[in-house]
Parts: sequence; structure tokens; C-alpha cells
Amino acid sequence: MTPSAATRPLHVLVLGGDGIGPEVTAQALRVLRHMQAKYALPMQIEEQPYGNATWRATGSLMPAATHAAVDRTDAVLFGAVDSLDRAGMPAEERARGSLLSLRRRLGLFANLRPVRTERALDEVSPFKPRTLAGVDLVFVRELSGGVYYGEPRGIERDADGRRRGINTHIYDEDQIIRAARFAFALARGRRGVLTSVDKANVMEAGALWRQVVTALHHDEFRDVKLDHMLADTCGLMLNRDPKRFDVILTDNLFGDVLSDAAAGMAGSLGMLPSGSLSVPKPDGRRRALYEPVHGSAPDIAGKGVANPLAAILSVALLLRWSAGVEAAAREVEAAVTAALDAGARSADIALAGEPALGTEAMGDAVLARL
Amino acid sequence: MTPSAATRPLHVLVLGGDGIGPEVTAQALRVLRHMQAKYALPMQIEEQPYGNATWRATGSLMPAATHAAVDRTDAVLFGAVDSLDRAGMPAEERARGSLLSLRRRLGLFANLRPVRTERALDEVSPFKPRTLAGVDLVFVRELSGGVYYGEPRGIERDADGRRRGINTHIYDEDQIIRAARFAFALARGRRGVLTSVDKANVMEAGALWRQVVTALHHDEFRDVKLDHMLADTCGLMLNRDPKRFDVILTDNLFGDVLSDAAAGMAGSLGMLPSGSLSVPKPDGRRRALYEPVHGSAPDIAGKGVANPLAAILSVALLLRWSAGVEAAAREVEAAVTAALDAGARSADIALAGEPALGTEAMGDAVLARL
Ligand SMILES: CC(C)[C@H](C(=O)O)[C@@H](O)C(=O)O
Ligand SMILES: CC(C)[C@H](C(=O)O)[C@@H](O)C(=O)O
Repeated sequence: MTPSAATRPLHVLVLGGDGIGPEVTAQALRVLRHMQAKYALPMQIEEQPYGNATWRATGSLMPAATHAAVDRTDAVLFGAVDSLDRAGMPAEERARGSLLSLRRRLGLFANLRPVRTERALDEVSPFKPRTLAGVDLVFVRELSGGVYYGEPRGIERDADGRRRGINTHIYDEDQIIRAARFAFALARGRRGVLTSVDKANVMEAGALWRQVVTALHHDEFRDVKLDHMLADTCGLMLNRDPKRFDVILTDNLFGDVLSDAAAGMAGSLGMLPSGSLSVPKPDGRRRALYEPVHGSAPDIAGKGVANPLAAILSVALLLRWSAGVEAAAREVEAAVTAALDAGARSADIALAGEPALGTEAMGDAVLARL
Repeated sequence: MTPSAATRPLHVLVLGGDGIGPEVTAQALRVLRHMQAKYALPMQIEEQPYGNATWRATGSLMPAATHAAVDRTDAVLFGAVDSLDRAGMPAEERARGSLLSLRRRLGLFANLRPVRTERALDEVSPFKPRTLAGVDLVFVRELSGGVYYGEPRGIERDADGRRRGINTHIYDEDQIIRAARFAFALARGRRGVLTSVDKANVMEAGALWRQVVTALHHDEFRDVKLDHMLADTCGLMLNRDPKRFDVILTDNLFGDVLSDAAAGMAGSLGMLPSGSLSVPKPDGRRRALYEPVHGSAPDIAGKGVANPLAAILSVALLLRWSAGVEAAAREVEAAVTAALDAGARSADIALAGEPALGTEAMGDAVLARL
């Protein structure tokens, strides 16, 4: 008997990718398998090659088997890919295999980037403890539109032969509503405050963004407190008073820059997970991609020193959003906090002179608490 | 005899604008007049009405006399304008009188935003003293192009009647070269390091930006160290390790968000000046506009409590870039530092419970040291 859509196991596709991607993903996978067993989760896990190393070895950034797996997966557990190291790669291959095209193929529209601060890392963060205390915010970054995707785009020559670079920033109201509805609902389940970010003062696309969010608030979410904030002001406020934020809704570009700006608080990019979701499919499941916010970090790749906590916390997001087991998600998050409280530190979060654990030992420290 | 272009006095146009703009500008003007007398600077100072209050009183955001003064001025000393409070204003008036159109009319292409940290404000800043120590960076934000200005733009309806917001991000190589050359030259006179910011990994306009900056570096500025940095990484690094930056070159949009994100370090937006410059006119002078980074702050307007230091430090930039008297610029900057070291604090930079000085008393504290 073929299992029905509702009961078929969750398919998780693991793409370690480049640089430190495979190293941190290996630890994340240990945690995932552990939780799968502990909670008896119906889950099928498949690993496939992807990235620049794969391209160098096989001539393909994303070989056919990986493409096929992407088409049938529910959730990708992604490591990292070095998007600039692509000299000599045919443009078509680059386009078909890029992270942006992966996001598009999976239909991802909402990128969740939680920023929580860990007391144990107060000393490591560039911020004062009084600024860090109680920070618990999440970005909902619209991921399907905006200036990364709009047409026309390219480098052209004008009449005088000068080159011009062009990208087009476009949002239609359905895209805005979809992301905003998701963000409002999320805020409703948290502290009930949504901050919507735009540059409505100078961009028409931002003015539309503000109108649409305001209308949706009025029609469906009056119980949520809505603040509109200019993107520059948000950049400032994230540093001045991050506690004030609960859910922050942004477009694709502002979310990219602002969530990284907020990441400084956590002490290291190595602490920050992310998850990206599609709208629910007919069977009610969303497709998803989970990845650490950090990149491939080629400078430390292969040395076994990378911090796997962002990848492990991405597994917590997978457990929450794709497997639907909130208790398991919280257990992973609590184990990370407990490991840090017990003094486990990878090099990126160790104070100068403090001994640091390698990638696997950090994985051990978390697993020991699960 | 009409004075020759070279010897004609510098014309300074003071536009206090809205909200706290007139209050902080009044203190800046006291400092400017003081330095004018002290250094016997040939300078003609003219004040004109501008802004939403002017619009409400006269039906014009920028009355004819102000428009005429803008056309002949060398340097605008600008307070603030509340760009969102414009319900009922005809679109044409809004467009003709906006800050963006003022920037365009003056031909401003380089927006300088220095961020220096003051030891006296270590306690006020959300950052740890070890992060703040030695921060001395300046943004060169390209101000004439990018997504604020590109066409097509607007809100349109697609075939199904759904609204779409569109803005176009365009840079041609001449715009990039002009801003980059300015930034390289500035870095050469400082610590010799330029960080150029883009999203070359996902935007063709960013890829062109990177190519053009790299070529200019190779052709004219090999003595300056050039780093390319993705905009998101820059957002992170400004918080993690701001000391590493000397001059940061950005496009219009990234500069807007990143410079505000960096502003958190200074403890308050009320500390941050800016200056915007045109290319030199035939007489060798650049046209310019100086303004605090903060806005009109309607919540505290009229109360005499706003911090005038950003406006006063903008006068220092005017003395440096328009009047060409570096010694006078440094004297103003040193007086601000000395006033802070002596304990002068407006409400925005006072610790909780600490008594705060009003706007005029802060002006007094600086003037007493000039
Ligand atoms: C690699 C790049 C395309 C990506 C983005 O900007 O979306 C990255 O910066 C991120 O934030 O996930
Ligand atoms: C008011 C607005 C147009 C302006 C900008 O974004 O350029 C402001 O935010 C600034 O940074 O000077």
C-alpha cells in the first residue's frame, strides 16, 4: 500500500554543499537522527552532492540525482555554498544550480531568521549585557521577490557605449499579502507585535508594501500591534534597542542586510539558524529549506573547527516547521543553551585565550544533553 | 567691482526645516558665525523657510525665494524635514520640494557620513567599550543614483487588476567611478583602506559596481588597500569589528541602511553629522549640503531638548569641505569632544537619572570651548 500523503514519511534532503557546509551539516544530521529515533518520527533522510566541489568533480553544480531529489523532497537541510567561486562555470549551470533557483524551485517565500541571545555568550558579544538581555526576535524575510529576481536585469551599454547595471525591484500585492499574513500569524503566537519595514518615503514599491500590510492588519489582524518602520531606522533600532522587536517583516533585500546586522548581537554568525517555507501544498505540508545563516567560510573549511550550532539550531526549526514536533524543537534549543551554559565553545565564540572545542566535540556537547 | 568667483564669499543657505530642525540648526548657526568671525571667513549666510510647516503656512514646501537661494548657494546647512507628513500636498509640489530633488538640483553625488565614537559616551552606547575604542570610519554613500531614482517606477496594475510596486535600480559606470574616485582619494588621506560594498553575487548592478571599482583601483589607486564586501556581511562586520573600517563606499540604498546601522555605536543619532558634495564647479568649488543624520523627531520638537551636536558637527564638515579651513573644522570637533568630556549631556545621551541639558545649553557648552 502506498502511504497516503498525510502519513507518508517526511522526506529530508541533506545538501552539505561547500566549505564548512558538510562539516556542520554532519553534526546537524547526528542531532536530527537522534531526535528522529527519540520521537519515532516518520522521516526518510537522503544525502546528495551539491556545490562548487561537486561541480569541479562532476562538471555539474547540482547533478541529476540531486535535481530529482529536490523535486520530491519536503525539507532540505542545507549547509553552505560559495556563490562567488564560479569562474569558468557555464552561466546556465550557474543559474540552474544556484541557491536562488533552489529557493524558487521549492516555492519558498518566507525566510525565518530568529535571533535569540544566549546569556552564556554575553562576554563574547560586542554589545553590552543590558542591550542583549531578553532579545528574542524573528525576521520574516520575503524570499520570492524584490530586486534579486525582477526583470529587466543585466549589464547593458547606453548610446555612448558606457555600461549600465540594471536590476528591478518589484512586488505585487499577492506577494506582500502572503508574507505579511505569515508574519502576522507568527506574531500572534508570540508577543503580538509586528514591525513592517520599508522605504515608503522614497520607493513606490515600499509605499505599496505599507498600504497592503496596513489593509491586511485592519481586515484580519487587529489584535496584533503593527508598527511601520523605515529600513534605515530599523538598522539603527536593532542596535539601540533590539528588545523592542518581536516579529520583523521585510522584503528580500532589506531582510538580507538587516538580519545580518542583527546577527552581531548573537556573538557569532555561527549561532544563527534559518528556515524558509513555501505555502502549504495540497496535502497541507509546506516545502522548506533549513540552513545556517553563515556561509561556506573557506578560510576554516576542512579544519574541523567550525561552529555547528547554527546548523543544529536549523534542525530545531525543521522539527518545528516541517516535522511539527514543537517539543523536539524546544529540546534541541534547550540542549544548545545547556551546552553553552556548561562552557562548550567553538573558536568563534571562545574568548581570547580560552580553549575551544572542534566541530564534532560541539556536536557531542549538544547530543549529550538530548 | 563684482568679486571674482575665486574670491566671492561662500554663500551658506540655512534651511532649518521641520520639527527639531530649526532648534538644532540655530545652535549650529551660532557655532558657524563664531568660527566665521574667529577665522575671518568670507561667508554670506542667508536663512530661508522650507518644509511642511512652510507648506502649511504658505502653500509651498519651498517658496520661490527659497528656490532662488538654492540655485545660487554654495552650501546648504539643513535641519530636517518630515517627509511622511504630506497628506493633501499636490504631487508636483512634493516632488519639486523634496529632499531628493534638492540633492539632485545641487548635483550632490557623494554623501559623507563619518562615525567616530566618543570615549565619554562609552556608557551610553549599546556596545562594549572594547568594540567602540578607536572606531573612526566614514561612509561615502553614492547619492545620485540607484533605486531611489531609477525609472520605470510607480504602482501599476497587472492584467488581473492586481497592483504591483516597481522601482528600478540603475548605476552607470560614470556614476560608480565618480563616487569611487572620491572614496579612494579620501581613503588615501586617511588610513588607506577602502571597503566597497555591493551584492555582486545576486545583482548585475552590483557585479558592474565591483568590476568598475576594481579597475579604478588598478589604474589609479594601487596604494590604497581595497576590500570588496557583500552588503549583508558589511551589516554584520559593522557590529562585530567596526575598527577594521576606514572608508566604506556604498550605493545609495545600502549606504542609507548601513550608515544608520553603524550609528548605534555613537550612542545616539543625535551625534552624527553628514555632508553631501557635488563635483567641483568650473570655479573649483563643490556645491554641498550639510545635515544631521537624524530626522525631524516630531515627538520632541519645540521642547528645546534636542541634541544639537549632530548639527554642530555638520558645521565642522562645512568648514572642512566648503570653507576649506581644516583647522576650524578640527577645532569644532575638539570642542564637542571637550564638552562631552566635561559632562555636557542632552537627554538622548544622558544615562537614566542623569540630569540633561537643553538644546541651547548644549550649544553654550560647545561655544564655551571655541
Ligand atoms: C547567498 C545569497 C544569495 C543569500 C541572499 O542574499 O539571499 C545570502 O546572503 C542569504 O542571506 O541567504
Ligand atoms: C529622507 C530620506 C529620503 C533619506 C534617504 O533615505 O536618503 C534619509 O533616510 C537619509 O538617509 O538621508
